[in-house]
Amino acid sequence: MKTPESLLESINNYIDSLDYSKEPKGLYEPISYVLSLGGKRIRPLLMLMSANLWKEDVEDLLPAAVGLEVYHNFTLLHDDLMDKADRRRGMLTVHKKWNDNTAILSGDAMLILAYHYFMQVCCEQKEAMINTFSKAALEVCEGQQLDMDFETLSNVTEAEYLRMIRLKTSVLLAAALRIGAEYGEAGEENARLMYDFGINIGLAFQLQDDYLDVYGNPETFGKKIGGDILCNKKTWMLIKCLELADESSKLQLRGWLNRIDFLAEEKIAAVTGIYNAVRVGDLAQEKIEEYYQKGIECLNQVAVPDDRKEGLRLLAEKMLKRNR
Amino acid sequence: MKTPESLLESINNYIDSLDYSKEPKGLYEPISYVLSLGGKRIRPLLMLMSANLWKEDVEDLLPAAVGLEVYHNFTLLHDDLMDKADRRRGMLTVHKKWNDNTAILSGDAMLILAYHYFMQVCCEQKEAMINTFSKAALEVCEGQQLDMDFETLSNVTEAEYLRMIRLKTSVLLAAALRIGAEYGEAGEENARLMYDFGINIGLAFQLQDDYLDVYGNPETFGKKIGGDILCNKKTWMLIKCLELADESSKLQLRGWLNRIDFLAEEKIAAVTGIYNAVRVGDLAQEKIEEYYQKGIECLNQVAVPDDRKEGLRLLAEKMLKRNR
Repeated sequence: MKTPESLLESINNYIDSLDYSKEPKGLYEPISYVLSLGGKRIRPLLMLMSANLWKEDVEDLLPAAVGLEVYHNFTLLHDDLMDKADRRRGMLTVHKKWNDNTAILSGDAMLILAYHYFMQVCCEQKEAMINTFSKAALEVCEGQQLDMDFETLSNVTEAEYLRMIRLKTSVLLAAALRIGAEYGEAGEENARLMYDFGINIGLAFQLQDDYLDVYGNPETFGKKIGGDILCNKKTWMLIKCLELADESSKLQLRGWLNRIDFLAEEKIAAVTGIYNAVRVGDLAQEKIEEYYQKGIECLNQVAVPDDRKEGLRLLAEKMLKRNR
Repeated sequence: MKTPESLLESINNYIDSLDYSKEPKGLYEPISYVLSLGGKRIRPLLMLMSANLWKEDVEDLLPAAVGLEVYHNFTLLHDDLMDKADRRRGMLTVHKKWNDNTAILSGDAMLILAYHYFMQVCCEQKEAMINTFSKAALEVCEGQQLDMDFETLSNVTEAEYLRMIRLKTSVLLAAALRIGAEYGEAGEENARLMYDFGINIGLAFQLQDDYLDVYGNPETFGKKIGGDILCNKKTWMLIKCLELADESSKLQLRGWLNRIDFLAEEKIAAVTGIYNAVRVGDLAQEKIEEYYQKGIECLNQVAVPDDRKEGLRLLAEKMLKRNR
């Protein structure tokens, strides 16, 4: 079995070897820029680690793994444009560094390139793998649409929110794991379990992100604490708090949501105070734990010797920052 | 052999049968809208007619033909957004009817769907067909980038312009024909000839479009005459005129390009007058004829009985409005 470190090195070497110094520069430079910004390469790593459960040699799967990473970076590029985000991984986003049209067109090219890389894999399972990818890719679009729809809805239920993050975040992690299993000829039952492992870990991961926006350590979170609170983002925290708070707290919370003039620190402190009173942080932790356990349970049922799954277990823990 | 009319009917029936009445509506309604606007379905028709040169039954190729049409409509959707165009086929463009983010995201979904439809074809040649599609799809992005680059360049040569329209327009027509030949197991030489037929007809087609913007019949052209002149679009007409005009005409032409305040009719008449003096219209006609003949020559060399190629010959004529 390969170590995650060596797989990650293969992924990064492969990405570094891609030559985007082509004409027209206006199309290819932003692609090169986006891919050079790094990131944890979790999706391709999950794909290779999954395949590695069944096959020793996963080198041939690298193009698909990188295709998935290119796809993921394409979604970030277009999402940042749609969300008018200025920065990504501490650097200017493409539409800020260049312009909107560049972000649209270079993103389109990345989506085509993602399929191009997938097509380079040579194996009988390629058809199933690409279909799994396409299904997930379309669902990510659905998730992004729901996320945008939610911005103008006054009421979003917990179930609706969970459906949205399942589509926007979880299915791609799940697809990465399933594609690895398909490549490994693991059989439908194992592929399904790997997919469900990914879905549950993905949900836990996104809820963790929502939680850390309120309760994270400012020094390790990476983003500013309270960002979601300031822009009234309908996170699990807010949705659950609006569901559970008593009338007086609910009124207070709605007051802060409607306020236009406020001091950032004051709003963050006030909303956090209401979250504390409703103990929505504890509830989030329980929910995260629930999904995490469900995910691990799926992984446990996968029919390969237990010690082979240790790497994926550790990666899931790391993603959920349980090793703080 | 199938008649073009019956192939077109199959294409339209297939498109009509696609169900986009799915959730989220914000994602799928614009796709349904774009595909319902019609269009001549030339690309899927070329693909099926090409395949039909070698295979009687081309029904199984329909998903790929429709995939190519979905891809083409995706490019129109994103191009209209980038060009800030208000109307397409007499109807509001997606970013006007909805908004920019909808145009971005629904377009992305269409690109994924294009691959999804391609993947539904069941044949050994699928891999080659999809690779031909991906290569063309990426080149269309390159062409669109060059087209946008040209807007801010003061000098574009004829060669640069021809390269741009080859990428932006011709390669997709060429790919349609080549994919049909690949499906038909026509062999590499025939596939190449069909591709080159498409490239040359595509170049003639785009030059015809440039020509008709100046000299077209307002009642049959579909767009307003002089649109390219008004927005200083670097068409073949303008580029060639700047190359060939004497110093005094060139100065006059540059004067009109730099003028900010003008009456539309006056500018169109003045620029057309300079085009007339340089006889750039006649030169365009010669160039169109040259590419058309080159294309037909490629088609003639394709190793199938001559009478089978009559439909494609007639379609090429029709595209170039030579049957006026």
